Amino acid sequence: MEISIRKIARLVGGKVTGDDRLLINGVAAFDAAGPNNITFAISPRYKGQLHQTKAAAVIVPVDIYKADKVLVRVENPHLALAKVSRLFQAGNKPAIGISRKACIGKDFRCGKEASIYPGVFIGDNVSLGNHVTLHPGVVVCDGVRIGDDVVINSNVSVLKDCQIGNRVIIHAGSVIGSDGFGFAHDGDRYHKISQIGIVRIDDDVEIGACNTIDRATFGQTWIKRGVKTDNLVHIAHNVVVGEDTVLVAQVGISGSVTIGNHSILAGQAGVAQHVNIGDRVTIGGQSGITKSVPNGQVVSGTPGMPHRLWLKASSITAKLPDMKKQLSNLEKRIQGLEKKTAKE
Amino acid sequence: MEISIRKIARLVGGKVTGDDRLLINGVAAFDAAGPNNITFAISPRYKGQLHQTKAAAVIVPVDIYKADKVLVRVENPHLALAKVSRLFQAGNKPAIGISRKACIGKDFRCGKEASIYPGVFIGDNVSLGNHVTLHPGVVVCDGVRIGDDVVINSNVSVLKDCQIGNRVIIHAGSVIGSDGFGFAHDGDRYHKISQIGIVRIDDDVEIGACNTIDRATFGQTWIKRGVKTDNLVHIAHNVVVGEDTVLVAQVGISGSVTIGNHSILAGQAGVAQHVNIGDRVTIGGQSGITKSVPNGQVVSGTPGMPHRLWLKASSITAKLPDMKKQLSNLEKRIQGLEKKTAKE
Amino acid sequence: MEISIRKIARLVGGKVTGDDRLLINGVAAFDAAGPNNITFAISPRYKGQLHQTKAAAVIVPVDIYKADKVLVRVENPHLALAKVSRLFQAGNKPAIGISRKACIGKDFRCGKEASIYPGVFIGDNVSLGNHVTLHPGVVVCDGVRIGDDVVINSNVSVLKDCQIGNRVIIHAGSVIGSDGFGFAHDGDRYHKISQIGIVRIDDDVEIGACNTIDRATFGQTWIKRGVKTDNLVHIAHNVVVGEDTVLVAQVGISGSVTIGNHSILAGQAGVAQHVNIGDRVTIGGQSGITKSVPNGQVVSGTPGMPHRLWLKASSITAKLPDMKKQLSNLEKRIQGLEKKTAKE
Repeated sequence: MEISIRKIARLVGGKVTGDDRLLINGVAAFDAAGPNNITFAISPRYKGQLHQTKAAAVIVPVDIYKADKVLVRVENPHLALAKVSRLFQAGNKPAIGISRKACIGKDFRCGKEASIYPGVFIGDNVSLGNHVTLHPGVVVCDGVRIGDDVVINSNVSVLKDCQIGNRVIIHAGSVIGSDGFGFAHDGDRYHKISQIGIVRIDDDVEIGACNTIDRATFGQTWIKRGVKTDNLVHIAHNVVVGEDTVLVAQVGISGSVTIGNHSILAGQAGVAQHVNIGDRVTIGGQSGITKSVPNGQVVSGTPGMPHRLWLKASSITAKLPDMKKQLSNLEKRIQGLEKKTAKE
Repeated sequence: MEISIRKIARLVGGKVTGDDRLLINGVAAFDAAGPNNITFAISPRYKGQLHQTKAAAVIVPVDIYKADKVLVRVENPHLALAKVSRLFQAGNKPAIGISRKACIGKDFRCGKEASIYPGVFIGDNVSLGNHVTLHPGVVVCDGVRIGDDVVINSNVSVLKDCQIGNRVIIHAGSVIGSDGFGFAHDGDRYHKISQIGIVRIDDDVEIGACNTIDRATFGQTWIKRGVKTDNLVHIAHNVVVGEDTVLVAQVGISGSVTIGNHSILAGQAGVAQHVNIGDRVTIGGQSGITKSVPNGQVVSGTPGMPHRLWLKASSITAKLPDMKKQLSNLEKRIQGLEKKTAKE
Repeated sequence: MEISIRKIARLVGGKVTGDDRLLINGVAAFDAAGPNNITFAISPRYKGQLHQTKAAAVIVPVDIYKADKVLVRVENPHLALAKVSRLFQAGNKPAIGISRKACIGKDFRCGKEASIYPGVFIGDNVSLGNHVTLHPGVVVCDGVRIGDDVVINSNVSVLKDCQIGNRVIIHAGSVIGSDGFGFAHDGDRYHKISQIGIVRIDDDVEIGACNTIDRATFGQTWIKRGVKTDNLVHIAHNVVVGEDTVLVAQVGISGSVTIGNHSILAGQAGVAQHVNIGDRVTIGGQSGITKSVPNGQVVSGTPGMPHRLWLKASSITAKLPDMKKQLSNLEKRIQGLEKKTAKE
């Protein structure tokens, strides 16, 4: 597939410096690009080093003008990369239809251009929108509803009655709708509380590989529009994750937590149950959040504190042995002074 | 399905205030319940607010008497919730038998009322008790023994020779019996130590989604009666987890750890190898336990310390920058005093 | 299977004390071994206690001579255990060939003695070497290349174009080649950056259960020869893990991190993006590494510091409440002294 720079520039809203009729056959990293590729100079460190890539063309920030390459100058090179990389993405295979080696339940409704691979299991009363791809080993249980343009990768389980919106991607090995972790204790043993709610995933959500998202005890665990989760993320029962919020790898969200819109939880962070996290909050990696966090805060550490304070406080940890010595030393000197002044 | 309040009260050992002939068709959360539902007021904050639910009946603690609803008064409303939610749980489908699209090995023994879904793989010499459900994509390898009333959810792997008791539930995506992480180092490279033990899971255990429980090097990794694990829990080779112990999401247990009965490890906690944790121990979230913990202790932090001490100590972290300044300030003042007293 | 002590001694390069014609039928743990077994006394604590095992023979360090057992004396008993345990490992079943219940794509190349189990899915243009075992539920997507003597356990997904070397083992539930977590933000929403690179896994790598290894944005995520990962490990896009490096359970490696050779990252450690970790580095459990670590360092804590310093510093955490009191007390005493000396 060859695409002209003119077309690329139009796609990304960029201005071209050089020959916009140049044809490009792929996108590649700065160091790995070949003479028929376009590449990217997102970081300012590439400024003045554009001669070092073998690419024929480079997408650059608007303030870069000069190079012996064709330049596509844009406001947001990172965003342009997103658009161009999708343009060249291989694998936009035509739909394969419903494989005869898939197992389909009763009362199945399926939109057009489905790709249901061999080894897929679909229960009863399932409905799929248009352009849905279910990769091999996907299990979709009774009563599940899935929207348009959804891709569910291999060995994912979508359990009973869960609802998935449009343009959702779920990566391999994830589990949507496992039972919430709810037990009643009689003083001796635990008794299971049936988890009879669902998981609801709204439009434009992307769920990473090997995530576990539990169904609600009652009602719904709710992943709102535009949420992106990385791999191995755990979301417990009755959690609500707000629009365009990002959960980085190995984050764990306890039961009944609510998270607002446009927030970011960095890798391996944990949130205790019933905590509310606001909009546009950033939680640092490995943080342990046990209290609610208002809108706009940047919080790190265990327990959480303002990120700047945490940077200072955590840098002191390595000085604690010296501080302890200093403290003993000062105490001795005070004792000396006290003796001296007592004598006088 | 309609059930009378009288029947519900008998099930949960409760006393009825109001008309016990009232018929109920479901259980729901306080805010979401409809006029044919029963709901729950577990938390004291609902006292005096029972008029706010639309439910016809409410299960309440024994010390609540008055409301314009039918009340079922119980000692332990949480436990009553467990019992009533199971009563109404949908999906108690009749057994489907052994699907012709499952793949069954040699010398298969299977009790009555099995549900072996399409896409299940069963190796040789496997035995299943009565009322066993294996969901699609479940792999049960050679020599596995499974008891009665067991539910194994989709895409779970139960590997060679592992033993599973009665009334066990394993959630989707989990792996039972992966090789323990054992290698010998020759000073240069690692050499695999074959892991020839098994995993043994006793009665009434519930394993969360995407757990990994490794087989023992020799002997058995042993999950005892009544253990409940949340999602994404890792249990290494030769670990023993005692009866009615709870492992919350993303907990990691290293090799040869033993944990006693009735203990709780909160989310993301980690335990180093060969550590012994006693009975009725509570380990705080994200703790890193490197030393053994006696019976009854409540321990948090990395390294672990008594939980109350950890609460105090960790709250000081945010004050470390101020403490450091204070320390410098005191040192200067002492120097001043020392000079002054030296002159005199 | 019966094997003579002479043969075992030759295999492990050991010297025999006692009758080397003795026949052994298995290997077992010290306490569990029976009279036809061989066992191991790796730890010095077994010295002088060899009479306590029922085993007929014991593999011991070279400095142990005397016992009422046949002894096989070796330099590295742990390494000898690795070799002998493999000798006795059951399950070296003959290859089963390609099951008719597997689903195989176009242009499939497959070496000799394959074991492709029922329920395996193989896409188009896949090539497998000799002696490859794909367990039930394994999904191998288009364009994947796999070398000789590879074992891929049940429900593993190996996604598009990924490359796997020789003698690689991948444990159940793992995902190789999920999309890297890459999005461009337009100030409002996130836009997916297509991940068009691959994962490359070199020879002699062992990947634990439920790992997630993301494909590169461009180029490759690269797991080099001899790497061993434990369960639930996350490796992000464009990461390079050096030869013979070990990642213990629940470790998380962020995007574009490079790790050198012969390093060890202990359980639940996390590494921030773009960090370089050198050769022969050891990272402590639960550490949060945000800065690069030079060769040979032993680092623990969040943020990382030299391990010995961390041991001291973290042991002071529990003393912080006392230190804070001491500090207040000293301040008061200084105030007293200051008043006193001011009066004089």
